[in-house]
Amino acid sequence: MSNPSVSKPLKLGIAGLGTVGGGVVRLLQANANAVTHKAGRPIEIVAISAKSKAKDRGIDLSHIQWVDDPMDLVSNPKIDVVVELIGGANGIAYDLVCAALKAHKGVVTANKALIALHGDELAKLAEEKNVPLLFEAAVAGGIPVIKTIKEALTPDRLKRIGGILNGTCNYILTAMAKTGCAFNDILKETQELGYAEADPSTDIDGFDAAHKLAILASLGFGHTIHFKDVFVEGIRGINPDDLHYAKELGYTIKLIGIAQQHQDNRIELRVHPALLPCDTPLARVDGVTNAVFTEGEFSGRLMLEGAGAGEGPTSTAVSADIIDIARGSTIPMWGTDWKELTPATVVSRNEFVKAYYIRLMVQDKPGVVADIATILKEHNVSLRSLLQHGATNDTDDTPIVPIILVTHKTKEESLLRALQAIQKLPVITEKHIMLRIEEA
Amino acid sequence: MSNPSVSKPLKLGIAGLGTVGGGVVRLLQANANAVTHKAGRPIEIVAISAKSKAKDRGIDLSHIQWVDDPMDLVSNPKIDVVVELIGGANGIAYDLVCAALKAHKGVVTANKALIALHGDELAKLAEEKNVPLLFEAAVAGGIPVIKTIKEALTPDRLKRIGGILNGTCNYILTAMAKTGCAFNDILKETQELGYAEADPSTDIDGFDAAHKLAILASLGFGHTIHFKDVFVEGIRGINPDDLHYAKELGYTIKLIGIAQQHQDNRIELRVHPALLPCDTPLARVDGVTNAVFTEGEFSGRLMLEGAGAGEGPTSTAVSADIIDIARGSTIPMWGTDWKELTPATVVSRNEFVKAYYIRLMVQDKPGVVADIATILKEHNVSLRSLLQHGATNDTDDTPIVPIILVTHKTKEESLLRALQAIQKLPVITEKHIMLRIEEA
Repeated sequence: MSNPSVSKPLKLGIAGLGTVGGGVVRLLQANANAVTHKAGRPIEIVAISAKSKAKDRGIDLSHIQWVDDPMDLVSNPKIDVVVELIGGANGIAYDLVCAALKAHKGVVTANKALIALHGDELAKLAEEKNVPLLFEAAVAGGIPVIKTIKEALTPDRLKRIGGILNGTCNYILTAMAKTGCAFNDILKETQELGYAEADPSTDIDGFDAAHKLAILASLGFGHTIHFKDVFVEGIRGINPDDLHYAKELGYTIKLIGIAQQHQDNRIELRVHPALLPCDTPLARVDGVTNAVFTEGEFSGRLMLEGAGAGEGPTSTAVSADIIDIARGSTIPMWGTDWKELTPATVVSRNEFVKAYYIRLMVQDKPGVVADIATILKEHNVSLRSLLQHGATNDTDDTPIVPIILVTHKTKEESLLRALQAIQKLPVITEKHIMLRIEEA
Repeated sequence: MSNPSVSKPLKLGIAGLGTVGGGVVRLLQANANAVTHKAGRPIEIVAISAKSKAKDRGIDLSHIQWVDDPMDLVSNPKIDVVVELIGGANGIAYDLVCAALKAHKGVVTANKALIALHGDELAKLAEEKNVPLLFEAAVAGGIPVIKTIKEALTPDRLKRIGGILNGTCNYILTAMAKTGCAFNDILKETQELGYAEADPSTDIDGFDAAHKLAILASLGFGHTIHFKDVFVEGIRGINPDDLHYAKELGYTIKLIGIAQQHQDNRIELRVHPALLPCDTPLARVDGVTNAVFTEGEFSGRLMLEGAGAGEGPTSTAVSADIIDIARGSTIPMWGTDWKELTPATVVSRNEFVKAYYIRLMVQDKPGVVADIATILKEHNVSLRSLLQHGATNDTDDTPIVPIILVTHKTKEESLLRALQAIQKLPVITEKHIMLRIEEA
């Protein structure tokens, strides 16, 4: 409409031609006509840089300049926007994005680690240079959660943001629940299917979800957040038995991320496996699907569910950012001027107040339950239920049996102290499992 | 960022102070500081027009000019944007929006009937005058589905859009399923709760959902759509028995709207009650909640779920549109230039291909099933299952019993002809119930 550069093409330099980079080229070529109409002007890929020029990606790169050094995209005066799809919080991705912004070029990236770790610095740089920096694909792939929080919910004050932010973990936990197989077996199968990396630790130890949560919390609450302030627990310790007992109690286990604004303006930021009541929307999100919910003072509860990764959904998100820039997007990176963000004061783990699921492995001797219950009482931890399954092997003199405890809401600090004392009882045979219960 | 009018306030004239209008004033006043930061400039309500000045709405209007005639908002040179929250497809809402656009003022509206019936004409006018016309709140209240389709999914080619678009119908059907009570009793209760209007026909006869579906299809497929081309069936004919039998078969009944692009580019547009498999995401959306899903070539399946109405969510959507205008939104009303839209060629009802649920009430005489099955066979309608419950009253000579048929996928035309023939059988005691089955 009032955009002065309506017919001038927007010229892109793309760095990285993996799944996402290849997808972006494929999408922009397949839908070129429609994209031009929707962007109000043509979008032209001027140059590309990736590791191997020779690799056959099934896309036509013949009319696009190839550069070996991605920094050549920055020095090319024809390029308006650098699309960073290399990945990694530091190194070349970081250098490229900084250089592009300094050269007054817009940036589109799908790099969650980069944004989670260097978002403040990059926002400052982008605003100083008066260029856009967009990152829709960095959180939950094809689900437009950045745009939703940054634009659709921007008039509201959000109180809570969360969801299932890692498809790999969700796939593993869904498969464990269905098959009853052990974590390591399912992980191997997931790697063979291509849903988990050869080195899976970023996903299964919760860091990928934590990167995404930090970004969502910054956007939703208007805070600068240090990534290290996110409490992170992964899913390596989850055992098929726990999924089984959880189901018996009416729950399922998912890796979730929750960001919550307290009354005193402090925020709670945590990523961990949690028991979710089976009949809640989040509990039903299975497989590689991601889901993000928001709770706002005016907007109420909203939930978005879709593909958190994959070529098609992620390249849709990257391309939508490119079209936003072509249309003249003028929204600052964090939805508000960088200077308006305030540092987050983060609630420590000890102050979490949750209901908990605990599995203890004990020698089935008289008085065990009484000893445990007494310790819990001494630490003001109130029990909601106790599940004790008898030993299956009657011939054993002192069989080892699980005791499942579910507490009422309690301060995590009190529970941790109680568990420390319980762990010292001579009947305890291995380290306890402690999982938080998330009611909604 | 590059917005030249960063510090100049955006001045609003609001027409209508019902639930939504009151909510918008409340939200903009409560979050004034944050809204200013996010919009990049203050947003100021200059004048308001509504039916009664005296009514206490619990909001402070003392610093806002009151005008009795909403047209005075258009003639006020101070006002940049007219916010139309009066409602109705024609009459004053239509006149006001046309006049505002002609006077080069931006427009924000929550009026789905206006957009569904006059959207093309208004888009043309807005583009001629080079002013924005935004309508996020017109579809599914607090769920940002317009922005999602118009911006986040705009690079993609959508194949299917649909969902639960009317909270009143969903509340009634959910309550009928839970209680087993009759439609009219639940409708009365729904009216008492304020979830249904005194004259409920716009909701329960499907027209409200059809307005929303027409808007979503225009946006998603880039077509001009005549509202009368949407096939519409309401929920008055739904009986607790059908909910009961559906459940027996593994389904629930919801009023859904589906827009689907065929291979030959024709589109299917339908709003009707349908049987949904109980384990699908849409089937689990209960009460007044709305949900919209999209299926795209690249983006895959995405689902958004939230409050489809209510003061808070709807005023969040209206306020987000206002902030978009303050930030300098330059996106045409339908996401692409009005001239790029092509007229839709719509698939007629006879060509629908679905599986169907049919309930026949018959006299329990020998040979009934054979007669029915023969007619279906003659019309090439293939049966998937048949459910016959015996008569409860053995003393009756020829008791009346239901026969529930579920067909395989079949052309609606064939089924309608078969049902016409079945209806003439002397054992049929009342008109059949025919419901479509939506598999995903």
